[in-house]
Parts: sequence; structure tokens; C-alpha cells
Amino acid sequence: MQAPDITSFIPPLRTLMGPGPSDVPQRVLDAMARPTVGHLDPAFVGMMEETKELLRYAFQTENALTMPVSAPGSAGMEMCFVNLVEAGDKVIVCKNGVFGGRMLENVKRVGGVPIVVEDAWGAPVDVAKVEAAFAANPDAKVLAFVHAETSTGARSDAQALAAIAHKYGALVIADCVTSLAGIPLMVDEWELDAVYSGSQKCLSCTPGLSPVTFSERAIAKLKARKTPVQSWFLDLNLVLGYWGSAGKRTYHHTAPVNTLYGLHESLVILAEEGIEHSWARHADNHVMLRDGFEAMGLKFVVEENYRLPQLNTVYIPDGVDDAAVRARLLNEFNLEIGAGLGDLAGKVWRFGLMGHASSVKNIDYCLSALKQVL
Amino acid sequence: MQAPDITSFIPPLRTLMGPGPSDVPQRVLDAMARPTVGHLDPAFVGMMEETKELLRYAFQTENALTMPVSAPGSAGMEMCFVNLVEAGDKVIVCKNGVFGGRMLENVKRVGGVPIVVEDAWGAPVDVAKVEAAFAANPDAKVLAFVHAETSTGARSDAQALAAIAHKYGALVIADCVTSLAGIPLMVDEWELDAVYSGSQKCLSCTPGLSPVTFSERAIAKLKARKTPVQSWFLDLNLVLGYWGSAGKRTYHHTAPVNTLYGLHESLVILAEEGIEHSWARHADNHVMLRDGFEAMGLKFVVEENYRLPQLNTVYIPDGVDDAAVRARLLNEFNLEIGAGLGDLAGKVWRFGLMGHASSVKNIDYCLSALKQVL
Repeated sequence: MQAPDITSFIPPLRTLMGPGPSDVPQRVLDAMARPTVGHLDPAFVGMMEETKELLRYAFQTENALTMPVSAPGSAGMEMCFVNLVEAGDKVIVCKNGVFGGRMLENVKRVGGVPIVVEDAWGAPVDVAKVEAAFAANPDAKVLAFVHAETSTGARSDAQALAAIAHKYGALVIADCVTSLAGIPLMVDEWELDAVYSGSQKCLSCTPGLSPVTFSERAIAKLKARKTPVQSWFLDLNLVLGYWGSAGKRTYHHTAPVNTLYGLHESLVILAEEGIEHSWARHADNHVMLRDGFEAMGLKFVVEENYRLPQLNTVYIPDGVDDAAVRARLLNEFNLEIGAGLGDLAGKVWRFGLMGHASSVKNIDYCLSALKQVL
Repeated sequence: MQAPDITSFIPPLRTLMGPGPSDVPQRVLDAMARPTVGHLDPAFVGMMEETKELLRYAFQTENALTMPVSAPGSAGMEMCFVNLVEAGDKVIVCKNGVFGGRMLENVKRVGGVPIVVEDAWGAPVDVAKVEAAFAANPDAKVLAFVHAETSTGARSDAQALAAIAHKYGALVIADCVTSLAGIPLMVDEWELDAVYSGSQKCLSCTPGLSPVTFSERAIAKLKARKTPVQSWFLDLNLVLGYWGSAGKRTYHHTAPVNTLYGLHESLVILAEEGIEHSWARHADNHVMLRDGFEAMGLKFVVEENYRLPQLNTVYIPDGVDDAAVRARLLNEFNLEIGAGLGDLAGKVWRFGLMGHASSVKNIDYCLSALKQVL
């Protein structure tokens, strides 16, 4: 067989203002290019312990079981469901966008019995509907919802939702892929039991890892399982042997060493800025982008109170060609913005102001490019 | 919560001669540090197509469905089992080391009925035993074996094993994590139906991705499933929407963009060298290391005919302290070698000569360091 005549790939230099990936700072890219060491190397094990501590800070939790899963956010989601839901368990799933729908799919694939609470795309999860769902199903074992819906830009009230679940003795699984580091997320204060996120979005590492954190209640549920976890790769009982305690690491899989260097660096940058300052920066920059959009006559999909500062979804103006505008932004300005997904496909654009990409420079550039193209 | 006082991680510069990760060439590290682009960016989609073509060359296959899974080799393994084995399917699983055992675990977790063919650790899979297992279980749907057992350094006869399976109309799942690019692996000629590997080992990319390839027979079995695939993240029907055709990509998960840059570069390096030359280099360097070891009186675990050139397993000499030797090699020489796993823990050392790390320079250094320490 002939060897293909293919040369090194040199990517274009984009400005990433879609729903993720967002711009990755040079410090993180440099960290990823450092020499690979073994995944059981004592130096690496020390870095793993630091990463766990830095993630606890990002999640605002003391949970011992806080670590990055060696795969994207979708795998972090699946880890929560395969470990915490057993066949026959009733799960109340809130669906107000693509990612709630993906949670529902996960419930079905583990043999759970889903009770779906639906809200409009662009609206937050309705707390009253969740209360009613629990009243009708007091035996529900788990409540699952998305804190920050990446497909719409809506924020739901994670604290209020978790409080209802706990009143009924249910565990809480929360998708915090887009919220982590972008808006307040208080895992311990709000009593979220199983939380997954991504290395990208507001952390600004490259994509490919999924930070997760589990409460003692979640671990108790895991220990009380009557059936084995259906996934070997995502079985927390096994993953814990590697990530659990620095003293005795047992081999589970070969960790993605260099991507973990990148995650570590992105978390060091977050700690240097201070998470409250990161939240404030995201909030302030949203206001600046919003004012620019409103001056151009663009309308937001999500009501102001529930809007994510890091993901700004606006309706495409009448008569404007969605794909043509995005193609011009990409080709003439090297600017990536996001298309609509699912129910909102073709109707909206999604502008990310996430992590390192949430900057005045990017906002100025985006507003100026958009004015020229529209 | 106080921000942790943790600074950037600067790894030590090791020489990696264990069972993986192996040394990553600077070109791959540089590629990983290039600017992140979106996972639906046309430039990135072009790179994905190139990666598929380069992987087909590495696997020596024309299989359309050839791609990297966005997670380590263990997830590639699980992808094969969750898609190709349905509850109740009989699976003949060959176990002659750790990774055959892991395949068995995967069969159980998808509800398959395992028929185990066992061989000694260090021996290849016994073709006659597999023939007998099929004769006793002609209704077996799948044969699963490890081509190159990373825990022992033994090579099994993949072609002969696949021929038996096809005689009985069964599919073949082969673990080629350590064989890919290190020894001949002819996916089409040998008619292997589902093959998974890792981005590390003899490809010398960083760990974290799992190249896989599926034959038309495997896809037919997937299409004929009566039940949904139990994993959402690893469901080939969904993953195909993203990796399948360059013309129409649908979002499944956010691809690990920068690690894929690295894999692409490592495959370009392989194509430049030529895969036959890569096989020959691994074979030649094994001879050099073997001669050095034998001159020192070290004994190999695996019989010469079945020995993997890229993974050299030798017995620890009597009276030598396993952990102390490995610690001295690491601390004084920055040289990582592998410990024994499972049945061989404490009894053997594993010396990798994989990919970029399979070099005369590394062999000289390793032999010299080992002489000083022993």
C-alpha cells in the first residue's frame, strides 16, 4: 500500500467566539507541548494531585472525588448516568435544549425510567414544574438538569432545583459544561451531587477532558449499587484506583498526559485571576457585547434574568442568509461564531464570550466584523 | 474559598522505555501547540479526512470506517464491544495477559456470554484451542483476542485466528494497541473486522486517542442490531455522523482538536518513514537490545518466535530489588521502564522500544544505565 502524500497540518489562526472551543491562551498551548512523562511517574502523580485541588477550587467544593475524565464532556455526562442510575430507577430529566435531550438519551440507555419536564428552548427550567414532577413521583431517585444550556444560552436555578430534589431524597446530576468558571457555580453550597463539565468553554483549555465532581451522597449511591456499572471505561470504582489516592495508583488506562498539562495550566490561570474575578469579567463583557448588539437591532433569545454572559444567542435578522454570514465571518475575518442547534437551527446565532475569549478586544472585533458583513 | 497557590507544571525530561507512553517527537509536541480551531471548521474537517486516510495506511486497510475515537485505547476497546456484541451473544475471548482479561470484562458488561480460551502469560494464543472452542460453540458470534499483549510482550497469530472465526461465520475483534506500526498488521489481508489501537505506543503521539477501523461485515452486524447500543458516547451510529463523511458533519461531541493535530503529525511521520521501514526498524532494534540483555545474563519471558520487538519482557534477576532498580533508573538516569502487571507483577521488567523511542541511542543509554544499577 502506497504511503499517502500528506504533509503537516498548519491550522488557520481563528478568533473563536462560538459555543466552544473558545480561544486557548498561548500558556496552555505551551504547556501541552512540554515533554511527555509516564502516567505513573511520581512527577506526574504530583501534578494530578494539584489538578484535583485546582478543580475543587473551580467547582467550589471540598469533594474528595473531583478529577478530570480522560474524554470529552459527553463522556463525563455518561459517567454520571452509568454510575448513579440503575435499571428501573426513576429519573426526572429537565429538557430545555439539546443537552437536556442528551441527558434523557443517557437515562434510557442505562435502563432508567425517565420523567421528562419540558420547557421552551431559551427558557430556564421551570422550578414549579420540577416540584410538581416530584410530587407526582416522590420515588424518583435522581434529578438531572443542565445549569447552562449551551444550545440556547439559558441559565437555570441550580440551587433551587437541587433543594427540591433533596427534599425528596433524590440525587442531583448537573451539566455544568458551559457554566464552570463563567458564572457562579457553588457545588457544595448548592448541594449538587454529580457535576460534569468540559476542559474547554470558560476554562480555555483545549477540548478533550471532562472535569467531574461527586458528593459523598453520590458515592454512597454508587457503593450501594446492586448491579455492575455497564461501562468498564467509565466505572468510577475502577477510575478511582488511578485518580483516588496519590499513595497507591493502580493502572486503569493511560492518561492523556499532555492534555492534562494543558488543563493544569488553564486552572492555574483561573486561580491567578481568582474565580470571582473570572465571573465578573464574563458578566461585564456580556454587557458590552449586549449593548453593541442592541445598538445594531439584534434581539436576544433568552430573557435578561436568565441569560448566560458567556453564551449570547440572538435571532438572525429577517432576510439575512445564516450560512453566508457565518462563512464570510470565517473566511474574511477568521472569526468563528456558532450556528443554531436543534429547534433553533437556522434561526439564531450563538456568540461565545468564554474564558480567554471573553475580552474587550474580541468584542470590538466581533462587533466591527458583524457590522461590515450585515 | 481561597485560590490554591499552585504554579505551572514543568515536567522532568525522561527517556520513556516502558510499555507506554513512549517518547513523543518534538514535531508532534509542536503540532499539538498550534492554535485551536473549531471542530466544525472547514480547515479542521480537511485535516480529519487526511487523518482517516493516514490511519487507513497505518492499518493497511481500505475500510471507510477508520477514525480515531476521542478517548484512550480502553474506550476504543469498549466501542468495539458495545457496538458489535448484543446481550446473549456468545463471544470466544482469548486470555493470555491483562488485556485479554479486560476484553472478557467488556463482554460481561454488555451481557455477552463469554467462552474463555486461556493461555499462559507470555505464551501466544493457542490456535488449536480456539479451533476447539469454535467446534464446541459453532454458534459463537465473535472472536476477541489481543494481537500484541502489552502485559507480556507476546505476539499472537492474528491471521490464523481470524481465519478460524470466519470459517464459523463469526466476527473478529482484535486489540492492536501495541502492534500498530511496530509489527506487521494487515487489517484487510487478515480480515480483521474491528480493530482498536492507541495514539501512543508505536505511533508516538501523546496518549488519549484510540484509532479504530471496522470492516463492512462489522457494519452489517451493527446495522442488524435489535437493541440500542448501551453507550451514547461510543455509539457508532452517532459517532459516524461526525466522522463519517466530510460533506455533512453533524455535531456529536467536541473533538479533542489539538490532540488530533498531534495524531495527524505522528501519522505523517509514519508515512514519511514508510510503514515497512518502521516495522524493520523495530525488528532491528529489538535484536540489538536482546543481544545486550543476553550478554548481561537477562532471560526473556516470551519465546523468540512470538516475541514483540517493541516490548521486551525479561525476568528480574534473583536477589534484585524490583522497585529499587526502577526508582534508581528514574531518579538517576531519568529513564522509565515498565514494571510487571497482574500475574507477572514483581517478576519481570518490560522494556519498550516503541515508535520514536525505538532508537539506537535509547538502547545504548538503557544498557549502560542498567549495567550501572545492577
